[in-house]
Amino acid sequence: MVLLSSYRNGIFSQGYSVVVVFSMLNSQKLTISLDRDGEEPIYRQLIRHIRAQIESGTLPAGTRLPASRDLAHQLSISRISVVNAYAELRSEGFLSAHAGRGTFIAGESNNAPPPTNGKNGSAAHDSETPTTPDRSIREMMRMARKPGIINFAQGAPPADFFPFQHVRDSINTVLDRDGAKALGYEITEGFPPLRTAVRDYVSALGIRCTADQVLITGGTQQGIDLVIQALLSEGELLVTENPTYLGMIDIARARRVQIHGIDVDDSGIRLDMLENYIIDNRPRLIYVMPTFQNPSGTVMPLHRRRQLLNLANDYQIPVLEDGVYHELRFEGESLPPLKALDETGIVIHASGFTKMMLPGIRIGYLICDNQHYERLVRVKQAADISTPALNQRAMQLLLERGVLSQQLERNNRDLRRRRDVALAAAARFLPPGSRWNTPVGGLYLWVQFPTNGPTAAEVFITAIHMGVGYGIGTVFYTNGCGSHRLRINYASQRPADIEDGFRRIGRAWREVALEYDELEKAPLF
Amino acid sequence: MVLLSSYRNGIFSQGYSVVVVFSMLNSQKLTISLDRDGEEPIYRQLIRHIRAQIESGTLPAGTRLPASRDLAHQLSISRISVVNAYAELRSEGFLSAHAGRGTFIAGESNNAPPPTNGKNGSAAHDSETPTTPDRSIREMMRMARKPGIINFAQGAPPADFFPFQHVRDSINTVLDRDGAKALGYEITEGFPPLRTAVRDYVSALGIRCTADQVLITGGTQQGIDLVIQALLSEGELLVTENPTYLGMIDIARARRVQIHGIDVDDSGIRLDMLENYIIDNRPRLIYVMPTFQNPSGTVMPLHRRRQLLNLANDYQIPVLEDGVYHELRFEGESLPPLKALDETGIVIHASGFTKMMLPGIRIGYLICDNQHYERLVRVKQAADISTPALNQRAMQLLLERGVLSQQLERNNRDLRRRRDVALAAAARFLPPGSRWNTPVGGLYLWVQFPTNGPTAAEVFITAIHMGVGYGIGTVFYTNGCGSHRLRINYASQRPADIEDGFRRIGRAWREVALEYDELEKAPLF
Repeated sequence: MVLLSSYRNGIFSQGYSVVVVFSMLNSQKLTISLDRDGEEPIYRQLIRHIRAQIESGTLPAGTRLPASRDLAHQLSISRISVVNAYAELRSEGFLSAHAGRGTFIAGESNNAPPPTNGKNGSAAHDSETPTTPDRSIREMMRMARKPGIINFAQGAPPADFFPFQHVRDSINTVLDRDGAKALGYEITEGFPPLRTAVRDYVSALGIRCTADQVLITGGTQQGIDLVIQALLSEGELLVTENPTYLGMIDIARARRVQIHGIDVDDSGIRLDMLENYIIDNRPRLIYVMPTFQNPSGTVMPLHRRRQLLNLANDYQIPVLEDGVYHELRFEGESLPPLKALDETGIVIHASGFTKMMLPGIRIGYLICDNQHYERLVRVKQAADISTPALNQRAMQLLLERGVLSQQLERNNRDLRRRRDVALAAAARFLPPGSRWNTPVGGLYLWVQFPTNGPTAAEVFITAIHMGVGYGIGTVFYTNGCGSHRLRINYASQRPADIEDGFRRIGRAWREVALEYDELEKAPLF
Repeated sequence: MVLLSSYRNGIFSQGYSVVVVFSMLNSQKLTISLDRDGEEPIYRQLIRHIRAQIESGTLPAGTRLPASRDLAHQLSISRISVVNAYAELRSEGFLSAHAGRGTFIAGESNNAPPPTNGKNGSAAHDSETPTTPDRSIREMMRMARKPGIINFAQGAPPADFFPFQHVRDSINTVLDRDGAKALGYEITEGFPPLRTAVRDYVSALGIRCTADQVLITGGTQQGIDLVIQALLSEGELLVTENPTYLGMIDIARARRVQIHGIDVDDSGIRLDMLENYIIDNRPRLIYVMPTFQNPSGTVMPLHRRRQLLNLANDYQIPVLEDGVYHELRFEGESLPPLKALDETGIVIHASGFTKMMLPGIRIGYLICDNQHYERLVRVKQAADISTPALNQRAMQLLLERGVLSQQLERNNRDLRRRRDVALAAAARFLPPGSRWNTPVGGLYLWVQFPTNGPTAAEVFITAIHMGVGYGIGTVFYTNGCGSHRLRINYASQRPADIEDGFRRIGRAWREVALEYDELEKAPLF
């Protein structure tokens, strides 16, 4: 197939473009008119136009469509939009793909539902493109709820890790014991016995603090967000690892603070680069996840932890430590959190019980010295007055009863098993040239597809249609890197599904890779 | 008593001042050294110095202390600091007050606990001054928890209004039905059946919306905070009623947005003043509570509601409507919320189930049009990912079972009874010249002490020592007005305690007013 001609009409400046693509093979013409400023995602506009032309007979069965890379080039849009549109149309039976030959209009249009446009799409998730980074978590969470999908995309632990009966018992005990108090306002700092219980809990990790230094939050996410709001004004600068926690990228966007990621190596954030960056830019806060970093799984060794603290003290820049995966270790020796090594009060420690077992209860905590505490309480007060009383009281009872540590032990055994299944499945099913880490804790495998093939985003919709979802690597980077990376939450699936999920990813990758035909492999310009 | 002399030493500029006050009557000398920049509140420093001089014998029994106004003048501190210090020392037995004659060192120092300084105070609330506006809610909430205090200060409904057994049943039904799902993450927008239930619930108030326009929040406070964060950048301008919801003043401070209050009359916010202000200043958002305004109790009549919407549409300024008290009507006809009158989508409606019966469950909602919805979801996602799943599901079941409307009916009957008791007690016990409204809904009586007597803040500590707490009027104003105002949450107390509480307020007022002796009544300068 050769493209003979294309033109754009004169209203391009108003956000519209029309491209007509002639195909030599059968003299068919594809007309695409895009509204670049509209609310309807580009890939849905593409779907709409192609489907309309198939249904009207303008594009008869057997017509070969342009390769995705060429059409993207002609329309000046990203290739992922074309790939997604083709995948969707294929799943609806409008198109068929033939390995090595290209994408064709299918023999007959099937009885697909009538075309919908983006605004009035039949389902909420249909009206949004799944790969716009700032919508990605929500999209992933939505897709996770589609039945039949093996969902590696979420940040959640598996539901069968929750100590369900214990939670139920605790809630009922609290209701019996406290009556209506369990339904009333709690003070902003948190239910005092829970703050004491958290103090005791973290002392086992080596963190020495008083209950007055513990602030209960609505999950770890809220704790992190409160710190950003308390310490940074709009436009001020936050430094993170790169890649980093997606929720932190979301916070930076929502709070209008600048975020800059420093590369990580096998031992975590690169301190040489960090120091250079600090000297030139004087950021207000350093955010790190020293143990089982999300998404890369990195564990910062003890000496680098100490060096990081020295650096922070030298330049007097507070460190926000995210310890949410710290206890999810199934191999090797535990390392002290930064807060346990902190002698100057420069570290604010954020963690919670979310990843351990109870995401839906939404209990997290901040531990910090007095210099920040009052300001954090004020921001928490403004944010939501206090964390739900019942949830706090139930969590306190779970800690008192030792449920957490028992459950953690069981979960970590299971995590290790699932990790082993994931490693074996990755070796068996991922495309040759893929790479991944060997996690010793946490929930994730951090995978890289071969860099000369399709990206994680390009494979994504096809993978969803094959019944598997994963985290698209780019969304974890502060600068759009990581196009061939995937975050696989192996922990969230039972062993059989882990294996099956990797098989599907491998299959999806091969299907998309086949579109890399001779033309596709040619340089874009 | 006549003040002979006073001096300040040369290190005043470093935040210290020393004042020596000579008393003619018995040639005693009071030496006070204040650290104005320190962490210890001024009134606690006063307490510390006076107590030390009593304990050392420097100030013998029978010594008459300067009148609070004079000492405040001499020390260049606020009079409330002196009043609070005297009240605290009186409650500890160090001082005695004699009506019309003044304040004296008591006959013998009692066995009070050893002096504490602010930093290491024996209880958290001791180390903070209770009348600094931005700490007031927290202080009030803390004092509310002191046993034996009749607490009119809180914004909470009474615990005996909660449908305790129904909540318990709902939670257990949800756990039975949904299992671990009830403990997992919920999508950011909220549990879909709850969003549908909220849509149906507000349709009974005249608000027409789809479930896709409902965003579930962690209480109404979070809903309001999300709107501020989504619509205003730091330094931008928010317009409110004056007085207004204290939580909104907190939000403005925490989010670093400017807040300007427009005076209210008996029909709510003054639209003439609002329009003038808009013309000159172009605020980004108007925040109002049209029904049972907190704290003033005002209800905006229908014609003003329409005029307000016209004004907002003319100048294209979004309106945030706080509807949290709307359903707490026990007299008269219900008026439509602004959102029910809104034909252009200019109103964002924030409300929740907090004030109705379940503050500790922390479920609120926002209703808005598509133009704001996506941005609000992003801010919510960054804030805490989602509201606890279990709480959302239990609330949905409570709505489905009709518990809310039954409970509301019962609560409103009880509210009216308590209102009647409060009105009678106000007439009987409040000082002559006091004024108050006659609420037809909501939780509060909005009282004004006679303006030629002590302020609400000046009476506060004495009132606490007499076993009653109330909301100090100034904290509800954006500009420090309202010094003689009190917000009385009559709803939170049983009838006998309402009467007793008013009796104690009257007594506290009289005790403090007696300090307004001849000298006190003289002009300050």
